[in-house]
Amino acid sequence: VRLPVVSEILDPGDVEMSAGYVDCLQVGARSMQNFPLLRAAGRSGRPVLLKRGNSASIEELLLAAEYILLEGNPNVILCERGIRTFETATRNTLDLNAVPVLKGRTHLPVIVDPSHGTGRREAVAAMAKAAVAAGADGLMVEVHPDPQRALSDGDQSLTPAGFRQLMEAVRKIARAVGRKAPGEDASPFEKARRNSAARRGVGWGAAG
Amino acid sequence: VRLPVVSEILDPGDVEMSAGYVDCLQVGARSMQNFPLLRAAGRSGRPVLLKRGNSASIEELLLAAEYILLEGNPNVILCERGIRTFETATRNTLDLNAVPVLKGRTHLPVIVDPSHGTGRREAVAAMAKAAVAAGADGLMVEVHPDPQRALSDGDQSLTPAGFRQLMEAVRKIARAVGRKAPGEDASPFEKARRNSAARRGVGWGAAG
Amino acid sequence: VRLPVVSEILDPGDVEMSAGYVDCLQVGARSMQNFPLLRAAGRSGRPVLLKRGNSASIEELLLAAEYILLEGNPNVILCERGIRTFETATRNTLDLNAVPVLKGRTHLPVIVDPSHGTGRREAVAAMAKAAVAAGADGLMVEVHPDPQRALSDGDQSLTPAGFRQLMEAVRKIARAVGRKAPGEDASPFEKARRNSAARRGVGWGAAG
Amino acid sequence: VRLPVVSEILDPGDVEMSAGYVDCLQVGARSMQNFPLLRAAGRSGRPVLLKRGNSASIEELLLAAEYILLEGNPNVILCERGIRTFETATRNTLDLNAVPVLKGRTHLPVIVDPSHGTGRREAVAAMAKAAVAAGADGLMVEVHPDPQRALSDGDQSLTPAGFRQLMEAVRKIARAVGRKAPGEDASPFEKARRNSAARRGVGWGAAG
Repeated sequence: VRLPVVSEILDPGDVEMSAGYVDCLQVGARSMQNFPLLRAAGRSGRPVLLKRGNSASIEELLLAAEYILLEGNPNVILCERGIRTFETATRNTLDLNAVPVLKGRTHLPVIVDPSHGTGRREAVAAMAKAAVAAGADGLMVEVHPDPQRALSDGDQSLTPAGFRQLMEAVRKIARAVGRKAPGEDASPFEKARRNSAARRGVGWGAAG
Repeated sequence: VRLPVVSEILDPGDVEMSAGYVDCLQVGARSMQNFPLLRAAGRSGRPVLLKRGNSASIEELLLAAEYILLEGNPNVILCERGIRTFETATRNTLDLNAVPVLKGRTHLPVIVDPSHGTGRREAVAAMAKAAVAAGADGLMVEVHPDPQRALSDGDQSLTPAGFRQLMEAVRKIARAVGRKAPGEDASPFEKARRNSAARRGVGWGAAG
Repeated sequence: VRLPVVSEILDPGDVEMSAGYVDCLQVGARSMQNFPLLRAAGRSGRPVLLKRGNSASIEELLLAAEYILLEGNPNVILCERGIRTFETATRNTLDLNAVPVLKGRTHLPVIVDPSHGTGRREAVAAMAKAAVAAGADGLMVEVHPDPQRALSDGDQSLTPAGFRQLMEAVRKIARAVGRKAPGEDASPFEKARRNSAARRGVGWGAAG
Repeated sequence: VRLPVVSEILDPGDVEMSAGYVDCLQVGARSMQNFPLLRAAGRSGRPVLLKRGNSASIEELLLAAEYILLEGNPNVILCERGIRTFETATRNTLDLNAVPVLKGRTHLPVIVDPSHGTGRREAVAAMAKAAVAAGADGLMVEVHPDPQRALSDGDQSLTPAGFRQLMEAVRKIARAVGRKAPGEDASPFEKARRNSAARRGVGWGAAG
């Protein structure tokens, strides 16, 4: 088994080289309005995972996606990962409202990152399930073999066992809402990969 | 069939009289920090549905509940109904993160109002399903026989047919997450009613 | 010297009695949308100091004032005291933008509370001066003879000496923007008092 | 008279060339967490005007400045230009609280942009005066000879006559708070320029 690779890009000057090594380029939340980076990602020919900025409106997320699409790259995956609000009990406020709103306004796949969206391990599974029930096309979940020793984001990382258990639960929800479950259908990454004629497959779910 | 009645109270001076006629008193989002009202609701002996203020933190919601509990009334139902953020595509940002966080911090039942939480009919069903998947104990959904003619909140109201369809979908999600579905178990209202030895039953779900 | 009294009201049932003892009734930020309370304050005949809710829009503040005005009470003083945002370095974000916006939309006097608006003693003086420069008609500043021992809000209270120093600075700013300084002109409280034919005078500035 | 030039940089690859032509490099609000850009600006040897991101905390603004300082460039000017909140009556909420808080935590100069901070011409002058009263070291104000025809930001631009009138008022406030007024002292740009041994001067105030 070969695990597919998604890697974050930060500098437009690095995009071309990165594109040669990874299956999918990620534009992080802090870079969502980095227009030179968006354009470079668009020109790369690779699928682009575009994360919503933590204070970006849904409208602004769609406008950012346009910068990539306008370069002739149709393979953009949108990712809701939490917005900044007054609430401090969680790291961010996961805005699942964005899922049905985006699905009504674009054909692009929408995935959800409940790890950054909550910042708390004990809330990740509940919100992953909620995301699928809300209609998300995929999940991005942080997993670490020993979260307590993680260099970053340990508080929001699942263990591999926790992740397996979550995938089991997600499968049930996916069926309950009439969707193919992970493994039964191509993931948004896979579909984007096929569209962009990349040579190697990418699967559902975990990033760690 | 007798439909149970939940009615919003606004003035501490009205609580005693209202309590004689309704099954459950609602403290609305705008009143969440109206301390005389919370105390009067606590003394009423009736179950109290406490809605989170649109800029109240989870911590503040729990502190508001304490005002009711301290009067010796244990039957408080917490309701997440959306918070105020910069996002304008939806009326409020439904903070489903609050569901797992609250479930980890209190034994009180937690319900979700996706109607106010989105303000858009086309997003209500998705977020109702998400709420149940996230672990909510119940839903509060606005229904109107002719939403376009509703005097208020028409944009966020389901038709009776839309509501039936939603309940069907919710039942499947409830089973997928290992919970009793509506009708198979007592609702949070019903449990609160029994606790407070009220004489009449209240059911799951719709408020219109 | 007789110091005038402003007292906060919380319960509509208490308004009539309070009105007999105080020069001005305060509706606090948490009560800004307590409609029975606003109406009772309107009927009291006393000047009403209406504080903006910490998540209330400028529009909503003006609508809340309407509830008082509609009872035939024209003596409403609006108070900006900070809104809730993501910023945690200060207790609230003092929205001084509201001063020119309100002055452009209403004839009602607008005062500013930099104590709650910052929550930090070391920022109170700077923001009090800024408020006057922005066009505020008055200030509401917390003063305590021994802030470290204050039962509440000590962190944001000035000492009496700090307050005198601030008033000196405020006088200079007031002159620089072509306004009467405190003591040279009737305060918003005084003007409201005269309008409502109350018997006793109220002065500029401190609440502690 | 030679007007000094501040120009915004967007791409790390453009910084070196830009630095050859301008007196000061601006890192815009959307780029505040663009770390490769911050580092490139730090290495340029030019003064850097760093605008606060519209959802960046004060802490995060200081951390962003560190990226520039760590490259050995001490000439960073911080700029408060409004944050994103729920309020829609203004384009942003100008957070003047940030001025005293920043002055208490850093020696770097702090300027304020009331044009973006309000988005409304009729509020710009009031907030410019407030900024100076709050302790700001400078202002950044949009001016356009014919704001109604401006290609962008016309709603928040002053006319040249309005700008002259504002500078007159600002001078009075500056004196009232015991500071040198524009023209009586070197501006933050000028001081930064001298520090970085650039050859040409930059003045107080307008950007259009």
